[in-house]
Amino acid sequence: MNGADILCDTLLANDVDVCFANPGTSEMHFVAALDARPQMRCVLGLAEGVVTGAADGYARMAGKPAATLLHLGPGLANGLANLHNARRAYSPVVNIVGDHATYHLQHDAPLTSDIEGLAAPMSGWVRRVTSPAQVSQDAAEAVCAAWGRPGRVATLILHADAAWNAAEHASLVRLAPPAPRTVPAQRIEDAARLLNNGKRTMLLLGGCALDAAVLECAARIASASGAQLRAERAVPRLARGAGRMHVERIPYALAAAVAELREVEQLVLVGAQVPVAFFAYPGQPSVLTDPACSVHQLAAPGDDLGAALAALADALDAPAIAPASEPRAALPLPAGRLDADAIHIALAHLLPDDAIVCDEAITSGVNFFKYTRGAAPHDYLPLTGGAIGGGLPMATGAAVACPRRKVIDLQADGSGMYTLQALWTQARENLDVATIVFANRSYAILHGELKNVGANAAGRNARRMLDLDQPALDWVKLADGMGVEARRVETVEGFFRALQYALSRRGPFLIEAVL
Amino acid sequence: MNGADILCDTLLANDVDVCFANPGTSEMHFVAALDARPQMRCVLGLAEGVVTGAADGYARMAGKPAATLLHLGPGLANGLANLHNARRAYSPVVNIVGDHATYHLQHDAPLTSDIEGLAAPMSGWVRRVTSPAQVSQDAAEAVCAAWGRPGRVATLILHADAAWNAAEHASLVRLAPPAPRTVPAQRIEDAARLLNNGKRTMLLLGGCALDAAVLECAARIASASGAQLRAERAVPRLARGAGRMHVERIPYALAAAVAELREVEQLVLVGAQVPVAFFAYPGQPSVLTDPACSVHQLAAPGDDLGAALAALADALDAPAIAPASEPRAALPLPAGRLDADAIHIALAHLLPDDAIVCDEAITSGVNFFKYTRGAAPHDYLPLTGGAIGGGLPMATGAAVACPRRKVIDLQADGSGMYTLQALWTQARENLDVATIVFANRSYAILHGELKNVGANAAGRNARRMLDLDQPALDWVKLADGMGVEARRVETVEGFFRALQYALSRRGPFLIEAVL
Repeated sequence: MNGADILCDTLLANDVDVCFANPGTSEMHFVAALDARPQMRCVLGLAEGVVTGAADGYARMAGKPAATLLHLGPGLANGLANLHNARRAYSPVVNIVGDHATYHLQHDAPLTSDIEGLAAPMSGWVRRVTSPAQVSQDAAEAVCAAWGRPGRVATLILHADAAWNAAEHASLVRLAPPAPRTVPAQRIEDAARLLNNGKRTMLLLGGCALDAAVLECAARIASASGAQLRAERAVPRLARGAGRMHVERIPYALAAAVAELREVEQLVLVGAQVPVAFFAYPGQPSVLTDPACSVHQLAAPGDDLGAALAALADALDAPAIAPASEPRAALPLPAGRLDADAIHIALAHLLPDDAIVCDEAITSGVNFFKYTRGAAPHDYLPLTGGAIGGGLPMATGAAVACPRRKVIDLQADGSGMYTLQALWTQARENLDVATIVFANRSYAILHGELKNVGANAAGRNARRMLDLDQPALDWVKLADGMGVEARRVETVEGFFRALQYALSRRGPFLIEAVL
Repeated sequence: MNGADILCDTLLANDVDVCFANPGTSEMHFVAALDARPQMRCVLGLAEGVVTGAADGYARMAGKPAATLLHLGPGLANGLANLHNARRAYSPVVNIVGDHATYHLQHDAPLTSDIEGLAAPMSGWVRRVTSPAQVSQDAAEAVCAAWGRPGRVATLILHADAAWNAAEHASLVRLAPPAPRTVPAQRIEDAARLLNNGKRTMLLLGGCALDAAVLECAARIASASGAQLRAERAVPRLARGAGRMHVERIPYALAAAVAELREVEQLVLVGAQVPVAFFAYPGQPSVLTDPACSVHQLAAPGDDLGAALAALADALDAPAIAPASEPRAALPLPAGRLDADAIHIALAHLLPDDAIVCDEAITSGVNFFKYTRGAAPHDYLPLTGGAIGGGLPMATGAAVACPRRKVIDLQADGSGMYTLQALWTQARENLDVATIVFANRSYAILHGELKNVGANAAGRNARRMLDLDQPALDWVKLADGMGVEARRVETVEGFFRALQYALSRRGPFLIEAVL
């Protein structure tokens, strides 16, 4: 057995059985080893942003890491933006990056670069494997590090000679992934006391998948104590829809967020961080809470949030809450010219049970929550790190993780162009993803921001940098060019029919919704 | 004037008047400043690999830097692979990356990351601008650093508050770019003595644009001394074709390169490095020259190669060489089924005078040199760093630099998919680029490498990672979806007609050559 064989066997022994890949020459022994192990599912991305974004989406839905396979420093670099999103989602990812043979590095061959330097900013754990004897221990520790609480990006740099050389005594290392940390009883008691002290309190959730049970428990606490309940904007995954507790996220817009938090006297963090502005603006605060607001951490990301909330609910003697707190409901469908709101209303009507909704709709997605409180129950996956190009790959990975659930990607057109190659992977793997492109043909959010900085009318240079027209992108042709069936719609009725069609079939479909 | 205004004015004052951009919120004051200065040409790329690759292509042809504009760490990360290629081409690039306001960083907002850490591996110079008072000095030094000899990637990290705050005393800094270093006379004399000592000698050129005059001088030296003349594989730019000295590059294939260098007893480097294997292979050497070969550096990258070669030619009393050393000629065009060789022969027939040929054809490009020695004179720009996705952006930037020259991009289909968004920029700017996609529908080079590692028949997992069929990419639709006219051809006759058409018009055109 060579190091590459041992690596594959160790991944499989540690329950990593999907590899999102874009290999090169220096990883060819690893490719050969994967080829000999059909129980590892290898999914090719035609650009590395697809690979890493899919690993993020997979982790958020599977609750366990996939492996990536990236080619040297440039391949890793191309994948870093979506690793940034994965990092901000606490997604476990075993990020495998090939490097030259150890003895070859000194010669500075053209593809040589500082892989550790590139990996470190987006990784919670980085290690080089320099010999086949080390591979199994290092790979098992990488899986553990990725799966650590909270999840993180664990980058394993595999030298070509560590892959191709044989190990004399190859024993496979299996390590149990760490369990979530238990929150000390004292912190539960402290939180219970705070929630009873009569101050205006917000319970802020974040840091890990907020499933229906966690939300139910949090809602019990809020109801019993009178606390406000909110989720972080960048929550990795949120259960929503009819029959589930509705939890709003902190608004993106600075003024709205500040207004919402102004009255809060104490903040109880459950896996969340103190909310801060996404961007700084002249004369505006960075921290969104009032300076006088006191902050108490019930649980850190990586703690057992569910158990902590259950214990807190018990400590408060919080009564159970009737289920189905959100009834199934949708506003009447408007007619005529399509806009983003009409799309969200149509989704409220048509969303299938247990769908997965990935959201990189940016400005067009602002009202999705407002209109879909009563939609069929679904999981909602937002862009966590703000790195553009997350949506299409995330939807791809979520569909690999959950082959029996419909995935819907709410996709801004500008953002979609960063990683449109994901459509090919969806076609190749016949993934059940409906992509809705909100085609407003501009970086609409930036037009707003340009106004904010005092430039009232965008001139030629600004328009050339913020508009996506001249020429307009034709998403039907782009999708078709990668093997994904697609349709362009401009009316509400047309969109409704296209969405019905997309949901009536299995496999990828794209709707270009011209706004 | 705020810092952003001062930055724009400083760039213009230092002869940087093109900005390849993909901005975000934190760069909005810079966008507003660019908007107020129409003399700066702003070119949008829909993904950052397009932005940085275009800056590389621009620099290679313009001989001066363009600026980039990238959004925070993730935007930089997306552009790093083509900055790697730029670095290996010694291309001057003023790489401007926005960052949060200085005081906002401590709050670890979602888009925060270690920008310096990300930039360092691909940059020769990195600096943060933290106040508007510093901007002009820092920006002028960035231009100088980029333009330094040799050229490099100079990354200037612009904090949002350094952009939006006003400077009290804004005086614009202008700095003269450094001149190429003069090679000491002793090194010329040493080289002249070596070239007369009767040993088998190779003169290896590299490190900067090898124009016709430099090649002529090198050829005189080779002819007078009996030395072999070669160029590095990763030469940034090479003048070729009828009427110019023909210089072969060191072969990519390890065995061929070793065979060619085996007999060389002494190597004289002119801006070049000692040739090393692109990748390591088990049991094969990393350094391509014989261990007994002695190495002498006439000129380092950044030295004045032209002057050094002229002085050396004089020292050797090397007689002038008749011009037109390569007559115009092309093999007869084959007929029927298209293959890569037929494409190169057709190019030899049809290449217009003074074309710029960008080459990311990978396996399909191997014989381009063989068939086009007698083609019309042209500049040849290869992939220097091996980071895939360089071709389409490089062609885009070269066309911005040289609006009156036809640019032809020899483009492998797998590599093209990494940065296909460049086609939109070509359409938007109406750039005169003909893209020839060699559609073999696989990572053909990796199939070869997989055989090299002993895996004779690729199984399902390997095929799923190395083949680009199922579904086949439709490049005509992809191009059309981004506003670029395109045609698919499968025969030599069809290709010849399509190329004639592409060359008969101005503006972008894509030929999908199915192999």
